Amino acid sequence: MVLVNDLREIEALTFDVFGTVVDWRTSIIREGQALRKRLGLDTDWAALADAWRAGYRPAMDRVRAGELPWTRIDDLHRMILDDLVEPFALQSLGEGELWNLNRVWHRLQPWPDVVGGLRRLKRHYVIASLSNGNVSLLTNMAKFADLPWDCVLSAELAGTYKTDPEVYRTACRLLDLSPARVMMVAAHERDVLAAKGVGMRTAYVHRPLEYGPEAEAPEVDTSPFDLVVDDLAGLADALDAW
Amino acid sequence: MVLVNDLREIEALTFDVFGTVVDWRTSIIREGQALRKRLGLDTDWAALADAWRAGYRPAMDRVRAGELPWTRIDDLHRMILDDLVEPFALQSLGEGELWNLNRVWHRLQPWPDVVGGLRRLKRHYVIASLSNGNVSLLTNMAKFADLPWDCVLSAELAGTYKTDPEVYRTACRLLDLSPARVMMVAAHERDVLAAKGVGMRTAYVHRPLEYGPEAEAPEVDTSPFDLVVDDLAGLADALDAW
Repeated sequence: MVLVNDLREIEALTFDVFGTVVDWRTSIIREGQALRKRLGLDTDWAALADAWRAGYRPAMDRVRAGELPWTRIDDLHRMILDDLVEPFALQSLGEGELWNLNRVWHRLQPWPDVVGGLRRLKRHYVIASLSNGNVSLLTNMAKFADLPWDCVLSAELAGTYKTDPEVYRTACRLLDLSPARVMMVAAHERDVLAAKGVGMRTAYVHRPLEYGPEAEAPEVDTSPFDLVVDDLAGLADALDAW
Repeated sequence: MVLVNDLREIEALTFDVFGTVVDWRTSIIREGQALRKRLGLDTDWAALADAWRAGYRPAMDRVRAGELPWTRIDDLHRMILDDLVEPFALQSLGEGELWNLNRVWHRLQPWPDVVGGLRRLKRHYVIASLSNGNVSLLTNMAKFADLPWDCVLSAELAGTYKTDPEVYRTACRLLDLSPARVMMVAAHERDVLAAKGVGMRTAYVHRPLEYGPEAEAPEVDTSPFDLVVDDLAGLADALDAW
């Protein structure tokens, strides 16, 4: 933990989005159930959500490794979805419906603490997304979910994906702040560690429900992080943002 | 003028900021007068604001021409200000005061129609800045002036300045929209023409007071533009955004 004096230097907070700010799993299940009703599909949407998300890191790894040229998350999501059409028996979906289903990632619901927490934090800090989602995805999501970002920052602006240090450095450069004045907020150990690696302040958020009520919460050594909180209200409390 | 059907295709509006959204001249004069009271400076702040702004395009031209490497507006503003210290007898200002004065560009006041107009437009469109101001400047200004951008776009993200077509193309790419679905809104003919050149929709805003009450309004051939309006309320009216 840092001393209060160090935390006083913070001017901006950057947030991981998928899992930290929005509950992608429940959102996808909910849209899937609406689709099931309308089209009579007998799909296990929880399993589909998990399989879709499981394809996410390997797809980004291919970009980071240079095996794929720079490719937006929207297009990676679509590549993964295309591979799930057969196993999940989605063949009756037309191109327009698949396109729209892929855009579910623009329409994710925030965790219940998020909008209120961000509003409190925004009074004292610059608050920005710092997600692997592309700028347009994050912009549409902010509109949909009422996320009051001061600016939308994305790995897309660095042309590579987290946890490449260049993503965090690009964010600090665009905010015109030294990394010590920016706190990365995320529910994923690798993300927070990578931010710490470039000198940013760090807050780890517990999101035990990210992978569903039956998944085991990850075991994380939180000792390297400046703050460890249960949600964004807890973050606002810890930073004394009223 | 375009047909209403064409305007229905618009999904996003991008806005020039200095002059179109904020009244830089009055804002600088106001801060200068406060400084005059406090420090007893006998500066003609209207003349200083005009001289400062007059240095803006030549400085960007040096970057566009490759004579200077990529340099943010914050740093260009400071270079211009440093040259004005002697002619405007600002020698009594210390480094901290000059730094803070240079940041006046982060604290510009919007024209009276702007916040209400943007709020109406935001209900129907993605609204984004598209300014030569750097991301941090625009982010701070949005916080200061309550500008409800969905995302902050800047020439900085293209690494060159308007009216380089790359700036407009970068904005459309980040919004993931074809130029025909994005309308550039600006009070400056060159800016609107350059946007039109890449295929964007265009709205020209009359801001006859940008250069002060005594300046002559520029003579502009507005016939190439899709919409010509007096302010952002007029733009919302023209786009039927309620």
